[in-house]
Amino acid sequence: MDPDRLCMVLVSTRNPLNIGAAARAMANFCCRHLRIVHPYDLAFREARSAVGASAVLAAAQEFSTVADAVADCTLVVGTTAIGHRQLRHPLKVLEDGAASILQALHAPPNAPNRVAILFGSEKVGLSNQDLSHCHWLMHIPTGTDQPSMNLGQAVAICLYELARAGAEGAVPFPSAETAPASAAELERLTAVLLETLQESGSIHAQSLDSKQEDLRRLLRRMHLSTEDAFTWLGILRPILWKLRTKN
Amino acid sequence: MDPDRLCMVLVSTRNPLNIGAAARAMANFCCRHLRIVHPYDLAFREARSAVGASAVLAAAQEFSTVADAVADCTLVVGTTAIGHRQLRHPLKVLEDGAASILQALHAPPNAPNRVAILFGSEKVGLSNQDLSHCHWLMHIPTGTDQPSMNLGQAVAICLYELARAGAEGAVPFPSAETAPASAAELERLTAVLLETLQESGSIHAQSLDSKQEDLRRLLRRMHLSTEDAFTWLGILRPILWKLRTKN
Repeated sequence: MDPDRLCMVLVSTRNPLNIGAAARAMANFCCRHLRIVHPYDLAFREARSAVGASAVLAAAQEFSTVADAVADCTLVVGTTAIGHRQLRHPLKVLEDGAASILQALHAPPNAPNRVAILFGSEKVGLSNQDLSHCHWLMHIPTGTDQPSMNLGQAVAICLYELARAGAEGAVPFPSAETAPASAAELERLTAVLLETLQESGSIHAQSLDSKQEDLRRLLRRMHLSTEDAFTWLGILRPILWKLRTKN
Repeated sequence: MDPDRLCMVLVSTRNPLNIGAAARAMANFCCRHLRIVHPYDLAFREARSAVGASAVLAAAQEFSTVADAVADCTLVVGTTAIGHRQLRHPLKVLEDGAASILQALHAPPNAPNRVAILFGSEKVGLSNQDLSHCHWLMHIPTGTDQPSMNLGQAVAICLYELARAGAEGAVPFPSAETAPASAAELERLTAVLLETLQESGSIHAQSLDSKQEDLRRLLRRMHLSTEDAFTWLGILRPILWKLRTKN
């Protein structure tokens, strides 16, 4: 995804903290174009101090109408918590919506498409007039008891889903796990553990074989790494040594 | 996903607005169990007024330690923005992490597993001691310029991903392994192992705390079942007893 083609448009936002929160989420997901449509006057200026979002806020553009804010966009998507009014637009859940947006952003370089995602005010969302600028609507699938999301969180989730869906097929993050222990390493550990138990007097001679099998199974169930098998040897050896010198 | 088995644990949160924002996101995604570990005192009480989150906040539980907050959980996952310290845990990106969490939550009804997701303070995240209670860490894949997310937005994105992945067809039941050990059981085992090492004379007093963290991490990497944790206690106790009578 080319983040330069994506614009987040906040319409009639009331709370400056929410503009700041939206800008911070944009900074987190490398999205630069914030457009503000007639915010409550104070809100926009106060938001300029938000953590980690200064570059996004400094470059934010203010518009007096939705029409002006989306004028250069070829796809305009409205967000809604639904339920509060009859919708007259196609509605997509975020996952499907993000796939469509990614497809729109994936235009050839000589025909750059810009996409706008609109977020309405905290109290009433997007007005019918705002919605009339949208090609379709997008909905974050929440529970029905409390469907209305915080503005900054809704912006963050939309950007996360676009990043997630955009990265699908990319190389997965390597796991930090080290190589699994070899059978020989596990066997050495089994032997030391058995010896420690013998020295502590908690195994009867006649049950030695069955105890060894139990320990072997126990250690194998743990999927130890080579490093952890080594750590366990380092734990057991001084104990064994101490038991021996005491006996 | 059974949301009753999932606990969001906020550790040392400073800003009451963030506790409120986390609670609101939880209400949006039908997640009810909020646990707070030593917040800045005022923070917790002020948060009670947050929009749309009153039921979650009213039921929130306060704990003085991470160990107490996760005692009944069989999987403890830490969240991190990485980069700020060397990690000594397996790290999963959110999408993979959420899949693992869903699998853990998908236990048969007679063996209910609780999962805790830990979020650290706004400034420094989770401490090394907090992390030592975690089985593995999870990371929201953000851009590198501004990787650190707002707390409420991070909670919202984690819950969104769990809901999204959970809705994608059924998660297979885990293989017929026995029930995983709870955090309380692992903590008991950690304590007995530490004591045994102390009695054997292989720990210096000044390295007691760091050794405890090391052992805690070691035991959590092993994914012990309740039965195996019990077996280990049965192995260690006679050794400890023997060492004591000898000293």
